[in-house]
Parts: sequence; structure tokens; C-alpha cells
Amino acid sequence: MDHPVSSRSIIVLLTDFGSGDGDVGVMKGVMLGIAPDAYLIDLTHDIKPQLVASGAWVLGVSYRYFPAGTIFLCVVDPGVGSKRRALALSAGSWLFVGPDNGLFSYVLAEQPARSVVELTNPAYHRTEVSATFHGRDIFSPVAAHLASGVALSALGPQIDPATLRLLPNVPPVRRLNTIEAHIIHVDHFGNLITDIPLRMVPELFHCSTVQLLFPTQGSVITERRRFFSANPAAGTTVGTEGRRSSLADVSRPAPVPFIYGDSSNYVAVAVQNGNVARILDAGYGASVTLIIEEA
Amino acid sequence: MDHPVSSRSIIVLLTDFGSGDGDVGVMKGVMLGIAPDAYLIDLTHDIKPQLVASGAWVLGVSYRYFPAGTIFLCVVDPGVGSKRRALALSAGSWLFVGPDNGLFSYVLAEQPARSVVELTNPAYHRTEVSATFHGRDIFSPVAAHLASGVALSALGPQIDPATLRLLPNVPPVRRLNTIEAHIIHVDHFGNLITDIPLRMVPELFHCSTVQLLFPTQGSVITERRRFFSANPAAGTTVGTEGRRSSLADVSRPAPVPFIYGDSSNYVAVAVQNGNVARILDAGYGASVTLIIEEA
Amino acid sequence: MDHPVSSRSIIVLLTDFGSGDGDVGVMKGVMLGIAPDAYLIDLTHDIKPQLVASGAWVLGVSYRYFPAGTIFLCVVDPGVGSKRRALALSAGSWLFVGPDNGLFSYVLAEQPARSVVELTNPAYHRTEVSATFHGRDIFSPVAAHLASGVALSALGPQIDPATLRLLPNVPPVRRLNTIEAHIIHVDHFGNLITDIPLRMVPELFHCSTVQLLFPTQGSVITERRRFFSANPAAGTTVGTEGRRSSLADVSRPAPVPFIYGDSSNYVAVAVQNGNVARILDAGYGASVTLIIEEA
Repeated sequence: MDHPVSSRSIIVLLTDFGSGDGDVGVMKGVMLGIAPDAYLIDLTHDIKPQLVASGAWVLGVSYRYFPAGTIFLCVVDPGVGSKRRALALSAGSWLFVGPDNGLFSYVLAEQPARSVVELTNPAYHRTEVSATFHGRDIFSPVAAHLASGVALSALGPQIDPATLRLLPNVPPVRRLNTIEAHIIHVDHFGNLITDIPLRMVPELFHCSTVQLLFPTQGSVITERRRFFSANPAAGTTVGTEGRRSSLADVSRPAPVPFIYGDSSNYVAVAVQNGNVARILDAGYGASVTLIIEEA
Repeated sequence: MDHPVSSRSIIVLLTDFGSGDGDVGVMKGVMLGIAPDAYLIDLTHDIKPQLVASGAWVLGVSYRYFPAGTIFLCVVDPGVGSKRRALALSAGSWLFVGPDNGLFSYVLAEQPARSVVELTNPAYHRTEVSATFHGRDIFSPVAAHLASGVALSALGPQIDPATLRLLPNVPPVRRLNTIEAHIIHVDHFGNLITDIPLRMVPELFHCSTVQLLFPTQGSVITERRRFFSANPAAGTTVGTEGRRSSLADVSRPAPVPFIYGDSSNYVAVAVQNGNVARILDAGYGASVTLIIEEA
Repeated sequence: MDHPVSSRSIIVLLTDFGSGDGDVGVMKGVMLGIAPDAYLIDLTHDIKPQLVASGAWVLGVSYRYFPAGTIFLCVVDPGVGSKRRALALSAGSWLFVGPDNGLFSYVLAEQPARSVVELTNPAYHRTEVSATFHGRDIFSPVAAHLASGVALSALGPQIDPATLRLLPNVPPVRRLNTIEAHIIHVDHFGNLITDIPLRMVPELFHCSTVQLLFPTQGSVITERRRFFSANPAAGTTVGTEGRRSSLADVSRPAPVPFIYGDSSNYVAVAVQNGNVARILDAGYGASVTLIIEEA
């Protein structure tokens, strides 16, 4: 297996612009005027408008699958035109461009920033900078110049990484066997993904009982290892086997929600062949509490 | 007109992942790490979640427009993680990668498989294979390795094409002048496309009367050649001219649904400047019966 | 800053096809068979079905951000199959391909057509041309041939640019200090964009009072410079500072709608951190009247 280095720079776009306005296309036009051989990839443009935490999570579970040197152009920017800083930074093997509003929180929780600059050098911006579309006028040209080989240090002064704005509770805090957390994503199939990384609960697939409480919804998902084979039909019980296996292999009467380790490496809830978000009436931002019993 | 061969391998993606999760982007990242010069094209990611037949049809009416050698990476995979096989196959001038669940039924109805392998060689998968995201961990790296020149035979053992899982009734059966069929697609304009290929009804534009029955909806669309010019305003009648012509040319009082040969080469129903799916209250999966009168 | 010329031709796609049918992918397949090294960029495929004016506006505010030589393939084509002409034209530094139905009205209001041809030469179409999908059978192959270096003049006979079909009121007419106009776009954030270009109201940010009337909704947005600091909380008043600043900087009690100059360079209405389209119950096509007071 050879994994050759690309001859083209890859720029990955993540925004909350949707697909109907032409704004994403305009950003691509600006970039291709500067870096005509850049390879432009859409990560998503369907972040819920102005939901920085949602964009931050999607970026955080995606960046590591891209080749070293990939440039991420990220624009979820409710504060555009205000005094929030515009950034470019290197972390791990990747480069990131976007506003200083917490959008890089999940990346930075895994990859310490190696270098951060504030985008103050107008030589790398469009000549006219609007107050409301820095994606077009600042972030896109900067990403394209990076793709063309411009050094991070040319874009503006170094910033102390410790001053970067971060979202609170990324990741959430574990206190003994309890984690107060939230639903950070509802995926396309209606699965509910919490903001609890699997690495925070290494015993998840080995403990006797796990409970995930949805206090607002009044729902509790309980997984008990011992009861699995004895009584698969009983209420919300499901065993370790269920937790370990894929969604297809879970044999139990639908629609019983179960906890699983999502492919994003976060704790999540699903229901076989169904939409658990609808069943539990829970969505983005819902409070959840994970309780692990070792006994 | 010269039609030169591309220097880049084309990989076409079809999934039911939607555009909000970043999963499509992640698959692209995985592929670009292996085949940095591959050209990645989105066919659609909006197949209704887990609707294999729908993905199979969209693939089946699209693949032939792509250059020879194009690789189709297809992931509509409700059985991911179960015992369903993972496949790569060549058919016609193209390569296809995806689950063995019927997703290639429409392609294989037109193009006999020349070679099929089961994707069991882990050397061409990601090192860690999740139970729930084979699109990322198996199918994407395999497609990228094919794009890099790896031979089909390196990916795993040959499978007898006769053992491939196929969707039932692809295409439906014609009994004399009657075809029991279904709506296989509602297009973006609300037109209803049946799963009846035009090649199955060569007399469609020449016979005296065609009827399309929607038994559940209690609707009948009738096309009578002779009545067209005599009484264009009467009920659901419409003539051959209407059948032959484009949607714009059909001159009759809207909203009278009419039968036409869709550009996908399937029998379809439309209404001029309107959404026939809403008018008939019919959608994907609706039963239809086509009756052709030769007299 | 060097802005090198691309070695690849760029083709930008704008359609009302949505993303679920595979039609956009099919057009890309057709193009890559002819111009394998073309770089295909999606501007948008989410123009509301058959809404030519909407597509025309999105194209009109986007084209200028793409490099010289970019080819725009535009298919919003309710008259497909009728007698409407199929066109390719050069205007400014760009090329445009699509139906003669007004889709290029906003471009042509800014860039006089340098050369226009009717696409009658079948050598540059697909061999079989359907009545309902000229995007696939005529416009895509033509765009790809242009990308491959075919001259405009090879595609068909010259047309007098004066005979091109144009949308009425592009731009709307200003009578003294009043402009009767419409909402031409509701952006992804719910902002309402009028079809009044900022260049038509150069005094917008300097006059004493501006009013935007929504007669059908019975709403009036009033901006009074002098009242801003005196009474920021009173009703719908907001000062020049608000008009000049970005959406983030506008300090006033939400949800008071305000007039601003959109990054598209059109007069628009927004509300801070909210969806003004929902608040005013106004959408695409709504009549508006802009009244400017110089006093």
C-alpha cells in the first residue's frame, strides 16, 4: 500500500451556508482565482445556522481522516464583523482557517495548536472586505494563499494559543462514574450522538450496567449485560453484546433504544431500523447523564 | 470530436448519508490519502435512508453517462456490520464497490457482471474497521486502491455472479399487455417515475390507448390517441402528441396528469408546471399497473 | 500575490435539479467524457424548481468571483423541449451556456454580451437528444467542448444580442426617490434580499431617512439617522451606524428588522440573530417599495 503525497493542495470547506445561496460557490471562485490547482472538498455546509458547537464537533470528528497538509476552511461565524479575531492555525498535521469563536475546540482538545496567527495582513485578503462575508473576503483568500505555499507567519502576527476562545465543556467532565453531557449531533439516520468521547469511558463495553438519562424527556436507556440473553424482550434492557455489535446485529424487539459506540468515537443512542431522535423526542443540545456501574 | 481518456481516475459516490454529518467528506479524505489524484464526483447522497431499491435505481439510470473506467462507490447499507458481503465488481466498462444487498440490481439487469470479488483482504481496508461505517473503513479505501491501479483480484476471492443478491422484480414482468409495477422515484419536480423501462413497452408511443392505474389512490391516467385533438379538455385524456413531446409542449388544461417517457428511459407521469406526486397523493413504492391496448 | 492562470478549465453548474435525482451527476459524467480534465464546481442546484428569476439573480451575484475563462452551465429551464433557443455566449471575461429564457438577465445588466450563438450544431450535442433533459444532452456537452477549446462560433450561428430574452425590471426603475421592487432572494439565514442594487441608491448610507415598505404584509422598516442614539429602543428606528455596520455590531433590541447593504451588493433586510423572513412573513417575490429622504 503506497500512500503518495498529493501534488494538489486540498482545501476542505465547512460552513453553515446551506446550498441555495451560491455563497459556497463564490468562495470556491475566489480560491480558484488564487490557487487554480487546489482541490476543493465539501465537508458540510449544513451546520445549523450559527451553531458554532455543532460545526466544531463535525470538524472534530472528521479532520483526522484527511491527508497531512489538508487546509480546513471553516465558517460558522455569527460574530462576523464584530471584534472577534480571524485565525489561521496549524495543529497536528493540518491547517485550519476561520473565526476565533470556539469552532476549533474539538480539534484543539485532541491536537495542541503548534502555531496560531491573527489574519491582519490585508495583502492576503480581497481588496474590498465586506462586513458580513469574511468567508469570501478573508478566509477563502487566506486558505487559497496557504494552498499556494504562503507561510502562516506571513498572514499576521502570532497569537498565544492559550488566548484562543474555546467552547465550555469540550470534552465534558467525568466525576467518578457520572458524566453530565449533551447531545451534540443528530445524524442523518436520527441517531443521537453525545459529546462524550469513548476514550473517556474505557469500561463502557465491559461494565455490568450503563445508564443514559434524558432528564428533560424523562427517558432512561439502560444496558445490563446479564439480562441480555435471559430476557431480550424485557423493556429497555440490552446486553454488552448489543453494545459491541453493529446496529444491524442487534437482535431485540424494535423500537428499544440502545447505547453504542458511534463510528465518530462518541457515545451514542440508536434504535434498530428507526429514528431514535423522534422516538425519544430529543435533539441537539438535550442534556444527558451517563452513569456507569462497575459492580 | 475527440473524447480523450482522463489522466485521473474518477470515483463517483452514491450514498444515503445526506450532507449534514461530514461522513461523505470523511470518505473523501480517506480516499485522497490513498489516491491523491482521484477525481471525486457526487452522484447523490440524498437516497432516502436505507432505501436500497431507490439507490439501485438512481445508480442504474446514471452509470452509463460516465466514462469507461469510472469507479462507483455505493453505500446504502442497512445491513452494515451484519453478515452481508462487501463487494467490488466490474460490469460493462465500469467498476462498482458496495454491499451485496441488491444495490447493483438495475446495473446488472443491463450489464452482466464480468468479475465479482468479496472484499476480504484487510490490506486494502483501514487498519481499524468499525462495525457501523464500512463506507469509510472498507468501501472508500477499496475504491481508492482501485483508482490507484490495484487489480480487482487483489481485493479478495472471486464470487460467482449468480450468487449476488438482487432486488425482486427488476425489471417487473410483462404479461401480455399488462405490467404490474411500482413508483421507483419521485423526482425533484414531483414527477412520478415507474420501474418500467421504456424498452419493455416499445409500442408505448404508437398504441391506441395506454392506461396507468394507481389502485391505492384510485387514480387512472388514460392516454387515447384519437381523442387528443377532438377533446383535449375532457378529463384525463391526452394523445400521442403529448406522449411524444416534451413537458413544455403539452398543450392541455393543467393539471391533467399524463404519461411520458422520462429522460431516464422509464415510463413516468407528470403534470404540466405542477407536482403530480402531490396531485395524485402518490409517492415512492406506490403500486401501479400499466395496460396497453393495441387495437 | 501571484494569481496564476489555471491549467484546467473551470465549469460552474447552476440548476434547479436538487441533489436527489442523480441528474447533476449525470451531467458531470457527460462532461468528463468530453473534457476529462475540466474542474467542475457546483454553484447551486437548489434554485426553486423552474424559478428562472431566482437562478438569474444567484448567477448574477456570483459569476464575477470566478476566474476569467470560467464557463457557467446554467439549467433552469421550464421551457425545455419548446421552441426557446439554446445559447452559449461570452460576456465580460466569462462564458455562459443555457436556455434563452432570461437566465442571464442579471449578468447581461452588468456585462454586455460580446458574442452569442444558438446551439444548433448537433456535432457538439449528445447523439440522442431527449425532449426533457437538454441539461444532459445539449448544455453539458457544449460546456465541455468549450472547456476543451472548441470555439463559440463552431456551436451554431451568431445571434443578435438584442434579441435575447430578458426578465422585466432587471434592475427595477428608480423614479426620483422611490423604487418599486421585489424580494429576489431569501438567504439561508432568512435575510430578505431585494432586487435593488446598491449602486442604484448611492446615498443609502448618507441620507436622513430610508423606508422599506412591504405593502402586502403591511410592514414598514424605517431607518432614521438622527434618532439612533436618542432612542434606540423605540419601535423600528435605527441609525446610519446600523446600516453601515455588520449584522453582529448592530446594537438594538432584537427583533427589530433593519435595512443593510448585503454582501451581494443588493439592498436587504435582516434582524439580529433571527430570521426576518419569518418575522415579516415575507418571501421570494414579495413587493417592496424603497423610499429615500434626502432632507
